[in-house]
Amino acid sequence: MMVEQVLHIDCPDQKGLVYRITEVLYKHGLNIVSNQEFVDVTTNHFVMRTAFEGDETPDGVVNDLREALPDAANIQKAKIGDRSVVILATKEPHCVGDLLLRYNYGELPAEVDAVISNHEKLNPLAGAFEVPFHHVSHEGLDRRAHEERLQEVIDQYDPDYLVLAKYMRIFTPQFVDRYRNRIVNIHHSFLPAFVGASPYRQAFERGVKIIGATAHFVTDDLDEGPIIAQDILPVNHTHTAEQMAHAGRDVEKTVLAKAVKLLLEERIFVHTNRTIVFE
Amino acid sequence: MMVEQVLHIDCPDQKGLVYRITEVLYKHGLNIVSNQEFVDVTTNHFVMRTAFEGDETPDGVVNDLREALPDAANIQKAKIGDRSVVILATKEPHCVGDLLLRYNYGELPAEVDAVISNHEKLNPLAGAFEVPFHHVSHEGLDRRAHEERLQEVIDQYDPDYLVLAKYMRIFTPQFVDRYRNRIVNIHHSFLPAFVGASPYRQAFERGVKIIGATAHFVTDDLDEGPIIAQDILPVNHTHTAEQMAHAGRDVEKTVLAKAVKLLLEERIFVHTNRTIVFE
Amino acid sequence: MMVEQVLHIDCPDQKGLVYRITEVLYKHGLNIVSNQEFVDVTTNHFVMRTAFEGDETPDGVVNDLREALPDAANIQKAKIGDRSVVILATKEPHCVGDLLLRYNYGELPAEVDAVISNHEKLNPLAGAFEVPFHHVSHEGLDRRAHEERLQEVIDQYDPDYLVLAKYMRIFTPQFVDRYRNRIVNIHHSFLPAFVGASPYRQAFERGVKIIGATAHFVTDDLDEGPIIAQDILPVNHTHTAEQMAHAGRDVEKTVLAKAVKLLLEERIFVHTNRTIVFE
Amino acid sequence: MMVEQVLHIDCPDQKGLVYRITEVLYKHGLNIVSNQEFVDVTTNHFVMRTAFEGDETPDGVVNDLREALPDAANIQKAKIGDRSVVILATKEPHCVGDLLLRYNYGELPAEVDAVISNHEKLNPLAGAFEVPFHHVSHEGLDRRAHEERLQEVIDQYDPDYLVLAKYMRIFTPQFVDRYRNRIVNIHHSFLPAFVGASPYRQAFERGVKIIGATAHFVTDDLDEGPIIAQDILPVNHTHTAEQMAHAGRDVEKTVLAKAVKLLLEERIFVHTNRTIVFE
Repeated sequence: MMVEQVLHIDCPDQKGLVYRITEVLYKHGLNIVSNQEFVDVTTNHFVMRTAFEGDETPDGVVNDLREALPDAANIQKAKIGDRSVVILATKEPHCVGDLLLRYNYGELPAEVDAVISNHEKLNPLAGAFEVPFHHVSHEGLDRRAHEERLQEVIDQYDPDYLVLAKYMRIFTPQFVDRYRNRIVNIHHSFLPAFVGASPYRQAFERGVKIIGATAHFVTDDLDEGPIIAQDILPVNHTHTAEQMAHAGRDVEKTVLAKAVKLLLEERIFVHTNRTIVFE
Repeated sequence: MMVEQVLHIDCPDQKGLVYRITEVLYKHGLNIVSNQEFVDVTTNHFVMRTAFEGDETPDGVVNDLREALPDAANIQKAKIGDRSVVILATKEPHCVGDLLLRYNYGELPAEVDAVISNHEKLNPLAGAFEVPFHHVSHEGLDRRAHEERLQEVIDQYDPDYLVLAKYMRIFTPQFVDRYRNRIVNIHHSFLPAFVGASPYRQAFERGVKIIGATAHFVTDDLDEGPIIAQDILPVNHTHTAEQMAHAGRDVEKTVLAKAVKLLLEERIFVHTNRTIVFE
Repeated sequence: MMVEQVLHIDCPDQKGLVYRITEVLYKHGLNIVSNQEFVDVTTNHFVMRTAFEGDETPDGVVNDLREALPDAANIQKAKIGDRSVVILATKEPHCVGDLLLRYNYGELPAEVDAVISNHEKLNPLAGAFEVPFHHVSHEGLDRRAHEERLQEVIDQYDPDYLVLAKYMRIFTPQFVDRYRNRIVNIHHSFLPAFVGASPYRQAFERGVKIIGATAHFVTDDLDEGPIIAQDILPVNHTHTAEQMAHAGRDVEKTVLAKAVKLLLEERIFVHTNRTIVFE
Repeated sequence: MMVEQVLHIDCPDQKGLVYRITEVLYKHGLNIVSNQEFVDVTTNHFVMRTAFEGDETPDGVVNDLREALPDAANIQKAKIGDRSVVILATKEPHCVGDLLLRYNYGELPAEVDAVISNHEKLNPLAGAFEVPFHHVSHEGLDRRAHEERLQEVIDQYDPDYLVLAKYMRIFTPQFVDRYRNRIVNIHHSFLPAFVGASPYRQAFERGVKIIGATAHFVTDDLDEGPIIAQDILPVNHTHTAEQMAHAGRDVEKTVLAKAVKLLLEERIFVHTNRTIVFE
């Protein structure tokens, strides 16, 4: 597979930005694979993703871009394939299993460093894919004390991203702050419908004809972070809440995997509380 | 087209109901097109829809069913094609236009008796399809007074169902009570997400990746009635709230038309706050 | 609504094209709404669509682009809203009715000049929307003679595009040649499944679980032209071929309307036998 | 989980069948969970699936049904959870991995006895889930000789069903005959589009906007067997054939898993070359 570099540029919009950016890229002779740009007209904000071939981003490209662009411009570079993730889960195997399977057959451009859970149940599943498993029980610990133990384990790996693959606990703001726009969660409803606990139970009681799943960045506000991906599944009167939950697993795992891939391919910008996703 | 009769049976579940019902149908020699049954295990409630060929339901079938079934059984008969509807709308033409078009080419097994609006704008559209149009302005009237004028017009037609094709006003409980499970509304969101006004604006601000529409029966609680049909549409960061609203029109009109057809074909049961829909 | 101009650029790929193009646009001070570009790596071909605000494309922009770009570059300009279409249909009202309805409420940025049919049946429907209707019977005429009569009527309007809204006849190569990439057809299957006549009958007999519709440009090879848009609908064993055909109407009309809007907003490039669609 | 028994009844249609069947079921006091019936009006054929609770089907039920029904009636009983499958695959891990994962977390009501492949590659994946793996190379063998070796391995397990999870070889009629309506295959296109080899390459070249996957029973005619389930995925001009193949994996694995679950829950009837699927 071709090695790919990515540049992310993000600044208040003004005329000529694409011209100035592509001038720099052209002068450095970059072999552009794709440019994608977007202007959020409600906030007058410009974002651009450029992918190019090469082992690394040539010296001087980022500096020249800084000179060509307004001071406020945020410029990030990344190499696809260099990322690492730690997966947190509780007891349900479908999302973590699906991610491990995709990792196993090379679909995730990243290292999966470890699976961490507050229960022992998923240990054999992680073991089946030869991924280290850590059991960090929350028993007898308050939220903050448990997080500190989690933090110690996570710090061993220093991952780029945390993936919550049906991790059924809430983090404190302290924890979330450390990983701003770096924690992805899968919520088992079509947000903002059915925020909080037991969304399939809520969906059954409301009598909806469609259920869904939402992958989003974690913020301090429960289930309120920027949405990355969503998908749905038709249901009908024959589904009990439990059958909705079973059926929903297929959407949950697919939506989470999609979000994780978008993240690892550096296709997501967060602006206000929305995401810009260049698919 | 074949003339079709429908029986709706609805009672607490017990063993042998299908046997007892089909025994009656068999003894009357009915030419059954389809039987569909369902038991809601959470409330132990049985519903069954039987469709059969014929100009009318033979004498004695309903009586014999009453004798064969528990006293609590609710038994309804209907002839497909015999229904009538009145459409209420405000200014937006897409839902009312789509219904009139389907009516025009024979897709709705019903008479569309009239279109009523609190604005003049849709008069030519109704006229194009030769359906009577009534302008009942709400200007200067309180909610109840306006409803009384609406009621006078509706009473001229005595329709089986009222279809709210983007009728942007709320009814009083008095009005709703008169048409229990007989008023269908289209709400321009994937309920229960974005209840109330400006759902596309809310959807844009929340940054969702999917928008939707919901057809439901109208009850006293705003946007809380039993859901009949829902569908969705993917959106992304390039959609403004206005563009979401434009894109959403196609889902709104399709979902409303689907719900109206299900209703006119007598495929819907309401039980608790949920619908059982035999498609 | 904002007036929008569009530039289409199309040439063999080489480094720096976006830079050279955006340099011209910047120097002319254009107020860019969006740039979308794509390189077909299998043929090394570059396409770009630029939309900008303004009453017209400023003098000199196209010339400067020609100078900045390789000789082989194909550069087209268009003003959104300036297009006109003629609709051809046979007897089925759902696609033509849906287009007329959208035209009626301002969703199509074009004039619908006329509806032409080889039958009389759709005359009142066109009349309802005050669009001229022409009956051009094929009775007693060979294919070429009928086309010549059609051609006379079409020439009165000199439309930019022809839309075949379930026009159930085949054109000769002479006719097709005159409107290269300017005739859009809706085929009532998910092409390339079920080419030719009676696709729903074929779908029923094959026992498929999904049916679909395909909007495509018309070429000399039946049902083989570049595909613009497709969509599908789930079906099951309860659908007869006739019920599939009824259900399929909703997909047909939605897919055709989508393709027509993409065309009128100048979002489609044809390259080899494929389309590049900038949504 | 509740133990569930299933009866499949299948015969030419006549009046009163449901009455006669439910009379037998009622007299034996069966605790019915659901009845589903269908009459194929094109062939006048009746099918019915009854599910009831219990450890086994009571003595006499099948005999009494035989007496109550026409001689031609085909009556089958099955216990959900009693089935076994052998999976055949080649090199691609996504379908076999997904099935093993679902098996691992209890979603498949069956034993997965073994994975058999003509390559060694999937051995560790089967091992991760502690499912026996057999490498049966086709090297140097003609089709029939290879099948005989496969047959020896399969016969060790005597499975109810064979699941071809991207098994890229064709069977002889002799082999297929042994497993009539018992071999499920996943084809990586939306059949009948793109029969045969390289469907994603064909899809790319045709420029389709939607790709799909089809699970079907295997018959002597390549890709022509009764279809069980299909699903699709939108694609666009940015997808190369290889990217379509990657994207398509998610649909392939989901559709195959759906078909296998329908089979194991005894929800499928085959009639003519179509399936009746009671979901």
